[in-house]
Amino acid sequence: MKAVQRAIDPATRLLRSMDRTGCAACVGLDPVLDRIPSQKGFGNAVAAIRSFSLGVIDAVAERVACVKVQSACFERYGADGLEALSDVVDAATARDLPVILDAKRGDIGVSARHYAAAAFDSRGDRGVDWLTVNGYLGSETIEPYLERGGVFILVRTSNAGSGEIQMLRLDDGRTVSEAMADMVASLAAPRIGECGWSDVGAVVGATHPAEIASLRDRMPGVICLVPGIGAQGGRVEDLGGLCGSDGHGAIFTASRSVIYADQVAGQSWEEAIRDAASRLAETTGRIAGLR
Amino acid sequence: MKAVQRAIDPATRLLRSMDRTGCAACVGLDPVLDRIPSQKGFGNAVAAIRSFSLGVIDAVAERVACVKVQSACFERYGADGLEALSDVVDAATARDLPVILDAKRGDIGVSARHYAAAAFDSRGDRGVDWLTVNGYLGSETIEPYLERGGVFILVRTSNAGSGEIQMLRLDDGRTVSEAMADMVASLAAPRIGECGWSDVGAVVGATHPAEIASLRDRMPGVICLVPGIGAQGGRVEDLGGLCGSDGHGAIFTASRSVIYADQVAGQSWEEAIRDAASRLAETTGRIAGLR
Repeated sequence: MKAVQRAIDPATRLLRSMDRTGCAACVGLDPVLDRIPSQKGFGNAVAAIRSFSLGVIDAVAERVACVKVQSACFERYGADGLEALSDVVDAATARDLPVILDAKRGDIGVSARHYAAAAFDSRGDRGVDWLTVNGYLGSETIEPYLERGGVFILVRTSNAGSGEIQMLRLDDGRTVSEAMADMVASLAAPRIGECGWSDVGAVVGATHPAEIASLRDRMPGVICLVPGIGAQGGRVEDLGGLCGSDGHGAIFTASRSVIYADQVAGQSWEEAIRDAASRLAETTGRIAGLR
Repeated sequence: MKAVQRAIDPATRLLRSMDRTGCAACVGLDPVLDRIPSQKGFGNAVAAIRSFSLGVIDAVAERVACVKVQSACFERYGADGLEALSDVVDAATARDLPVILDAKRGDIGVSARHYAAAAFDSRGDRGVDWLTVNGYLGSETIEPYLERGGVFILVRTSNAGSGEIQMLRLDDGRTVSEAMADMVASLAAPRIGECGWSDVGAVVGATHPAEIASLRDRMPGVICLVPGIGAQGGRVEDLGGLCGSDGHGAIFTASRSVIYADQVAGQSWEEAIRDAASRLAETTGRIAGLR
């Protein structure tokens, strides 16, 4: 397997896509068989998920700034699922759509290098641009990824029970998630490029608006990937402060509310997705000041 | 894909294997192409890794209690790598050797259920017995795995920089890793079976012997998976306190020092691995009081 060579760094590529589409929107591709409108007529689950995912890529390309592909949805189908994932990554790349692989990897030493190779070299012909990673094992375990692409480190996740570890209070007054944010900032600082942003990003759930200002302040130059929009209840309107003065500081990602968007009478599922993606782009572009 | 049905729970299966082999030893299978003795003569990297891994399984079966397969080493080769991983899991299962998939997964909601399906239903015909997981996202994100198999939750990892987050001090005096241990204990307590141990385990690195007594005390009924033996410098002799009075409380895992064991004159690589596995079994069995 040959290491993928990239012409521009992942942050610049993402920012250019935000400018081109005038938005700070990401569509999360979490295909689940039971919810796929087009599953009838396919021989098997993987074929249905692959076809649906390619349809989503087609519907959202040129509307949103990037896509986030949930690795678990494909991994559950073993080797066939990984083949489908590669096809989806290739389809996004062909449409010039940056890809975040949401795989939340985290391991030590040589294993981290293997995961980096898996994400950045073996998922499709060109590989993905960004990978989500877990920093519980320390910053030395994140560095191997940075030789190959960008990372979003989990700081504050969007799930209801995320505070169990992340909101514990340290003896210096910080929460664990604030300490993680400081670790992210240390990793990111020497890697802030000419675009003003780093290839070390952070995952900060939209479901915790009260904590977001503090986390943003701790992480200058760090792009925040913000899940929890839409079906999970987070509102882009509450989170404008994440975007920064140039509008490039946050990417808001919605999954179910876009890819399973309700169809109005006479509308195909592809048209419903296009409309939902356009609405997400409009809202995020306006809040970020990109349109 | 059909959910795998298991006749006995993962803790009982592991303990029976410990008793049968008279040891608390696990061999970590982290095949890296450059270090494989038998790579010559294979058409490609995946074929070499598959063949070497099957050789390791054959050499260590009936000598050690279980194997830990590093998912990253296979994932880096994409779909072909996953096929090889399935073959390795099947080979271990055929030899009645419990399998820990070291994949350090951690995600929310439906994604956790997908990762559980990937590990426990789609890796080989029977699936693996145990999966390593990351608890930073909270215990609600661990529960989906417990419907399908056992988990080892990362508490204190063996890498040099692991203290950056794990050893931060909370305002109640605990470290973050002690808080994680308490979370593990809460998850484990209602799941302690007739064998006296839970299907919720913990990863505690052998490279931190000073902290181990405190972590052990916090986690009654929790089997500790102990990496960092051998090449990383941890010594089984320092860690007898982890084993508990019945000898079943810890599984010591060594990788490089076994699978790349030095060959003495005239010895094949398979014979060198057999000898190294037998030595690890002897040491751990004696320390645990199982022989």
